[in-house]
Amino acid sequence: MTDDQGRKRRAGGRAGMKARAGSAAIEQMPWRIPLNPDRPTEPLDAEGVQRVHKAAMRILSEIGIEFLNPDAVAHLKKAGCIVNGTNVRMDEDFVMEMVGRAPETFTITPRNPDHEIIMGGKHMVFVNVSSPPNAWDMERGKRSGDFETFKEFMKLTQYFNCIHVAGGYPVEPVDIHASVRHLDCLHEKLTLTDKVVHAYSLGAERVEDVMEMVRIAGGLSHSEFDARPRMYTNINSVSPLKHDFPMLDGAMRLAKRGQPVVVTPFTLAGAMAPVTMAGAVALSIAEALAAIVLLQYIAPGCPVAIGTFTSNVDMKSGAPAFGTPEYMRATQMTGQLVRFYGLPMRASGVCAANVPDGQAMWETSNSLWSAVQSRTNMVYHAAGWLEGGLIASPEKFIMDCEVLQMIQRYFEEATFASTDDDLAFDAIRDVGPNGHYFGVQHTQDRYQTAFYAPFVSDWRNYEAWQADGSVWTVERAHRIYKQILAEFEAPAMDDVAREELTRFVARRKQEGGAPTDF
Amino acid sequence: MTDDQGRKRRAGGRAGMKARAGSAAIEQMPWRIPLNPDRPTEPLDAEGVQRVHKAAMRILSEIGIEFLNPDAVAHLKKAGCIVNGTNVRMDEDFVMEMVGRAPETFTITPRNPDHEIIMGGKHMVFVNVSSPPNAWDMERGKRSGDFETFKEFMKLTQYFNCIHVAGGYPVEPVDIHASVRHLDCLHEKLTLTDKVVHAYSLGAERVEDVMEMVRIAGGLSHSEFDARPRMYTNINSVSPLKHDFPMLDGAMRLAKRGQPVVVTPFTLAGAMAPVTMAGAVALSIAEALAAIVLLQYIAPGCPVAIGTFTSNVDMKSGAPAFGTPEYMRATQMTGQLVRFYGLPMRASGVCAANVPDGQAMWETSNSLWSAVQSRTNMVYHAAGWLEGGLIASPEKFIMDCEVLQMIQRYFEEATFASTDDDLAFDAIRDVGPNGHYFGVQHTQDRYQTAFYAPFVSDWRNYEAWQADGSVWTVERAHRIYKQILAEFEAPAMDDVAREELTRFVARRKQEGGAPTDF
Repeated sequence: MTDDQGRKRRAGGRAGMKARAGSAAIEQMPWRIPLNPDRPTEPLDAEGVQRVHKAAMRILSEIGIEFLNPDAVAHLKKAGCIVNGTNVRMDEDFVMEMVGRAPETFTITPRNPDHEIIMGGKHMVFVNVSSPPNAWDMERGKRSGDFETFKEFMKLTQYFNCIHVAGGYPVEPVDIHASVRHLDCLHEKLTLTDKVVHAYSLGAERVEDVMEMVRIAGGLSHSEFDARPRMYTNINSVSPLKHDFPMLDGAMRLAKRGQPVVVTPFTLAGAMAPVTMAGAVALSIAEALAAIVLLQYIAPGCPVAIGTFTSNVDMKSGAPAFGTPEYMRATQMTGQLVRFYGLPMRASGVCAANVPDGQAMWETSNSLWSAVQSRTNMVYHAAGWLEGGLIASPEKFIMDCEVLQMIQRYFEEATFASTDDDLAFDAIRDVGPNGHYFGVQHTQDRYQTAFYAPFVSDWRNYEAWQADGSVWTVERAHRIYKQILAEFEAPAMDDVAREELTRFVARRKQEGGAPTDF
Repeated sequence: MTDDQGRKRRAGGRAGMKARAGSAAIEQMPWRIPLNPDRPTEPLDAEGVQRVHKAAMRILSEIGIEFLNPDAVAHLKKAGCIVNGTNVRMDEDFVMEMVGRAPETFTITPRNPDHEIIMGGKHMVFVNVSSPPNAWDMERGKRSGDFETFKEFMKLTQYFNCIHVAGGYPVEPVDIHASVRHLDCLHEKLTLTDKVVHAYSLGAERVEDVMEMVRIAGGLSHSEFDARPRMYTNINSVSPLKHDFPMLDGAMRLAKRGQPVVVTPFTLAGAMAPVTMAGAVALSIAEALAAIVLLQYIAPGCPVAIGTFTSNVDMKSGAPAFGTPEYMRATQMTGQLVRFYGLPMRASGVCAANVPDGQAMWETSNSLWSAVQSRTNMVYHAAGWLEGGLIASPEKFIMDCEVLQMIQRYFEEATFASTDDDLAFDAIRDVGPNGHYFGVQHTQDRYQTAFYAPFVSDWRNYEAWQADGSVWTVERAHRIYKQILAEFEAPAMDDVAREELTRFVARRKQEGGAPTDF
């Protein structure tokens, strides 16, 4: 079994981890949970926020949401909602009462408690690219996702301190049968990384298996697992106006065990949502709140968050576009609404570009800055996403991490502090009109940490860059990606937990894994 | 004379302009002066703004600024400043009194009054790349600037509606002798474009020549020229703490004729300025205010603006870095100070990258978004800049214009409007849970203008992109640049003005142009 071989190799290497710390492929920022100090950008005025809120409430009370899950419908019927078949309508008072039960902030603690994340407030965490069916890199071009590539991305996810969460599968490993894919993937995720992981809500068995694996990997009893968030799921509505069976089923299973659920409608303006951005946001908010109401009813106070995935189609091709001006405003407006409801928020780092070039980076920059501007707490797809989510790219992963590190540095108070030391009046007087600041004590005391230090950007002049081979950014990123993989060492793991995890996977595979309908 | 040939060819083509309007290389946004609706990002609290202000005042009153221009010193002495040789100290009351004379907003009207710009308030205009000594494109690589390349950039500047100002020379045409370079360059600028132009403050003769050429090109009498801003200059201090002779001379000449002066210190933290960003900003503000005080004293109420060019060095190479987190915060802090003084503000679209790749675009995006966040009124180098300003690139110009258009679209209220029409409740009800929005009337009525339409971004999926040749962004930009040049038609120009301009250039060349010291 390739898993076991991989495991043994990693286990053997653990002792060498600290010794090799000096030979890192890059110098990167230490782990931290960034705090976003900026006041959010607010395209809507207070009345505008109320108008979008009221539109969402009218959608919920007058149109209703389809819940394609009989348990969910039964719960909501019991709660007093108006039920017609799968259509459920709920009024504003009930919605706001249920939303009021949800915590504004919560933590998620992975098997390494040093990598605990905080969801809510001014905290912001970055999640790797999740769910592309394909991979692209400079050597191999575009190809279907496979398990080896999945592992590569897990290593990048663990390596970068600016990636806080090992989210969904960075590529779908189609070379593993769907019945056992979650077992192999989570085994790798829980051994190659020690960060927060996610369960796809794709059927009861998968969800239960992942919860059990997270519990085992953390060396936790069942009650310890249930006591606080240890993992999470992200569910999407089927816009417009629908929640499907497995997503609701998974969400309810997690909520009942106190594990967080992020609800992220995919409302593409002009396709599954109104062509107008405020309308697409209102629909998205209504769909998200509908699921959150259900979860708060069955598990009062369970941790939830609202995700936004509102963008627009390309009116020429019908393809989704990302990182557009409309995307940015939709993200900002969603942020205003989510703060109105007092919930944590998820957004994304996204682009429509097919390769990691200029377009990829301006679209990604647009989306990441709109995440900052909307005070997003969890940024999905923050590293590695291409082609509207159909491709995961390691070069893009490396390039995105540079941007993420710059955002983390941008948040640091040192960049805008105005103490007497920062204002440097004495240094200005001492240097005078004919001097240079490089040699003065004020500079010498601070220069090593004064500025962001890049790892893939090349700040040398053209001639130095040319003499070194005229290497464009994507090629530099490729080299770094290869070097990181070559040097990678898996994080430490308790041997008992590791062995129990491997036994669990073996047993569940023998049992056939999860049922598949194909 | 190549000038004349160029002129005649263009003159002959004018009639065809409108007829060929349908065969444009790209579909672009119409001309507009964008209005930035966002509340600025404010890293400093009110006390922080006061602290930076007071530090700048202490620099001006306790350390003083070197004015390497005897006329300037004489004026300031007469005004009551404390003068010691070239060192001039001024107190806060005097500074604030002089700053109070400057208008918060002003216009600049070029020869085509439809291309008038507004400086101040929420208005934002974009200026082409200015002053690189070199050019780079995909075919020819890096090479020294020349006149043919200068003309290419003038055509791009005129072509794009999102470029509002034909600023400095996009490349320095070193194949023209410095004594007559300004004559040839301004002749091309004033015939190939009809947008606001700029005079370099590099000696009395050059400044006077450019003012005269702008007057002639506009068909204006001397009093009509003096009556309102028709052009502008941008001066840089010699940081730290100095203003040199020609810059002050040019600035005073323009101010006396009511033409705007932008004062832009180049305070590179860790080199010519303190390593701390607030200190670098305080120094920059002090240097900028010193020149503005002089101008307001000699020409009360003359239009001025504060520019920021505060960034940091790369502590590894000493090279300037751009679009860094520190650069963004410096720009935002400067915006807060400039608004405190009630003046218009200039910033830039900049990067350290050597080629128009991913790094170029994330650095440029960082700088452009910080311009938005600081409510900058005039964005220099908004299209075409590479290698910290040492290279102008046509591909980068094209790529940047996509980002600029997206910023313009981002500003449009349609992206965040929340009227009943925008909230689209009826459409959401009518489409219901099983429909699609593409066909409904609400979409059909709006889809043609609902979303930003790109011209160089490729939003097709990978397979369509691959079937079309797998063309990366930089190559697409290269093709568009070539196509724009091939189709370019100069703007209409009054024949009398054109002939007078040509005669003026010929006469001044015969007289030897401007003196040079080499």
